[in-house]
Amino acid sequence: MNDATKQYTIAVIPGDGIGKEVTPWAKQALEKAAGDAASFQYVDFDLGAERYLRDGQILPDEDLEAIKQTDAILLGAVGDPRIKAGILERGLLLKLRFALDQYVNLRPSKLYKGVTSPLAEPGEIDFVVVREGTEGLYCGAGGAVRRDTPAEVATEVSINTAYGAERVVRYAFELAMKRRKHVTLVHKKNVLVNAGDMWQRIVDRVAQEYPEVTHDYCHIDAATIYMVSDPQRFDVILTDNLFGDILTDEAGAVVGGVGYSASGCINASNEFPSMFEPIHGSAPDIAGQNIANPTAAILSAAMLLRHLGFDEQAERIDRAVEADIEELGSTQRSTDEVGRDILARM
Amino acid sequence: MNDATKQYTIAVIPGDGIGKEVTPWAKQALEKAAGDAASFQYVDFDLGAERYLRDGQILPDEDLEAIKQTDAILLGAVGDPRIKAGILERGLLLKLRFALDQYVNLRPSKLYKGVTSPLAEPGEIDFVVVREGTEGLYCGAGGAVRRDTPAEVATEVSINTAYGAERVVRYAFELAMKRRKHVTLVHKKNVLVNAGDMWQRIVDRVAQEYPEVTHDYCHIDAATIYMVSDPQRFDVILTDNLFGDILTDEAGAVVGGVGYSASGCINASNEFPSMFEPIHGSAPDIAGQNIANPTAAILSAAMLLRHLGFDEQAERIDRAVEADIEELGSTQRSTDEVGRDILARM
Ligand SMILES: CC(C)[C@H](C(=O)O)[C@@H](O)C(=O)O
Ligand SMILES: CC(C)[C@H](C(=O)O)[C@@H](O)C(=O)O
Repeated sequence: MNDATKQYTIAVIPGDGIGKEVTPWAKQALEKAAGDAASFQYVDFDLGAERYLRDGQILPDEDLEAIKQTDAILLGAVGDPRIKAGILERGLLLKLRFALDQYVNLRPSKLYKGVTSPLAEPGEIDFVVVREGTEGLYCGAGGAVRRDTPAEVATEVSINTAYGAERVVRYAFELAMKRRKHVTLVHKKNVLVNAGDMWQRIVDRVAQEYPEVTHDYCHIDAATIYMVSDPQRFDVILTDNLFGDILTDEAGAVVGGVGYSASGCINASNEFPSMFEPIHGSAPDIAGQNIANPTAAILSAAMLLRHLGFDEQAERIDRAVEADIEELGSTQRSTDEVGRDILARM
Repeated sequence: MNDATKQYTIAVIPGDGIGKEVTPWAKQALEKAAGDAASFQYVDFDLGAERYLRDGQILPDEDLEAIKQTDAILLGAVGDPRIKAGILERGLLLKLRFALDQYVNLRPSKLYKGVTSPLAEPGEIDFVVVREGTEGLYCGAGGAVRRDTPAEVATEVSINTAYGAERVVRYAFELAMKRRKHVTLVHKKNVLVNAGDMWQRIVDRVAQEYPEVTHDYCHIDAATIYMVSDPQRFDVILTDNLFGDILTDEAGAVVGGVGYSASGCINASNEFPSMFEPIHGSAPDIAGQNIANPTAAILSAAMLLRHLGFDEQAERIDRAVEADIEELGSTQRSTDEVGRDILARM
């Protein structure tokens, strides 16, 4: 539960590209929603491409330590075309997720009234992806031999533990209890037999503790089909790090664009701060033009509030966003216009 | 080129579920298209779930040897819910792809006139995915320790070689030369830095030999977005084994269902027979009801003909399918009705 007398410290990491344009709006929405009910102070962190190009630092130990002392993190986006792919992503974004043991990557998808979905007959779409956040192919295990020769071999190793899987499986079933009580495990167990079999066994075992929750299984390839043809079938999707990455971007497209999709990288045992970010990337192609949609970033501020126990305040943001999209979702607006419009409704 | 005097031997492996219902139609279409121009003899292989349940055999050495002696393979689908996931897939389907070194998994996607796409504004969709077929996470490398205990660790290893990547990269650029001259590499090089970097370097190097072909790069997560929001941007998509699996199923959904998507598992150096199959699976939920769409299987027969150099004969199938879909694509028909309708037009 929240503590109305406490001052919460929020780390703000705008990062790169459009991250810098949308994060200020997330912060303003957070501040306005909080009102007198919650007291926040903000610590800005200069991390991302600019910092790296300036002094070669990606995530200095002292910054990581300072971030660990905060109550939650608001993040924009990480990635810059001037820097080799992977350096910032692995050195900053993934390092935070791993170092802060943010094992639940929570990604709700909802088709808002007023949004034109690219699907012909979208129906009611409302599901949550529970993506494992600290294992799988994201571990950084692997390497290359004879690099840049015709005999090069490059490997990537997916490491999966029962410890790591079971805690997200439990999270998914708990979440399903508060929703439509259905969990779909997504994997590729007909090919990735070791990891897939482990996930399935853990799901089957944990499911016995939740007799009210039904569960089924879907291969990742089939899941991408259902995402287009029948997204209504999903309630809670439970999946690994890479499949979750892929499926949530597709889900974003299906609900009218990743501009509406927020996410939380959650340390559900509260040993470390959780991090809230739009699922979109730094989008270098549209950065600096004041055209990125700040809605996803603003919705991630609502997720942050809810995580800290400020449900009512989170609702204020969610309702303002819903009303904004319903009325103006199909109009062309600048980043600042959308930000102002949403804030005006709060 | 084809040899009109030769009798070609075709291995027919209907496999499981709807594979058994659609493959006879592929065979009939092949036979009818061939007419007097080509002479085929068929060897049926009893492989799949029934065989496995009967005598425990998945792909006996003598069957594999016999298949190696054929000129091409017509495959239905593999997978049965009575058998643990992975056993038939890895023991039969993937074993064939690997043993016959079918390194190009070719998957064209086209929105046919008359098909109702689930996309609101589909536009003209016509691209080909060149999926690597013999490496990556499909190698079967990996394992588990302390299975079924809280301390279990399960790994999956993606093995990627310059040798394996370069040959599909070349294939993709050659193919692009015959099309709209654009190649998009899809990977996740910001996370899978070893394999992703190798793919990108090989693409950049081979691209220099094809100055007329433009090429770009797209992360797999972003690619799933474009697949829904802007599939027209793609001409030739080049990707690894797992990403290709995922993206082609989504592509199938976008062009109105995997019922229209055929594929070729191609040994482009012709040391071993190539294999042609619908991209859909065995679909146990609809098997035995005579409702599966045989179109994808029939189109895979056309791919087989083209592979053997019978372009005109392949065209006969393609044109019959196009006409059938344009006129009757939106009507409810049984497997046999669709098969008969298409054959009647040839
Ligand atoms: C930027 C990248 C490393 C990241 C991921 O793959 O997790 C992003 O795509 C996301 O989904 O948050
Ligand atoms: C059945 C399965 C092993 C196979 C694959 O993953 O390649 C299928 O999904 C396909 O795309 O042909």
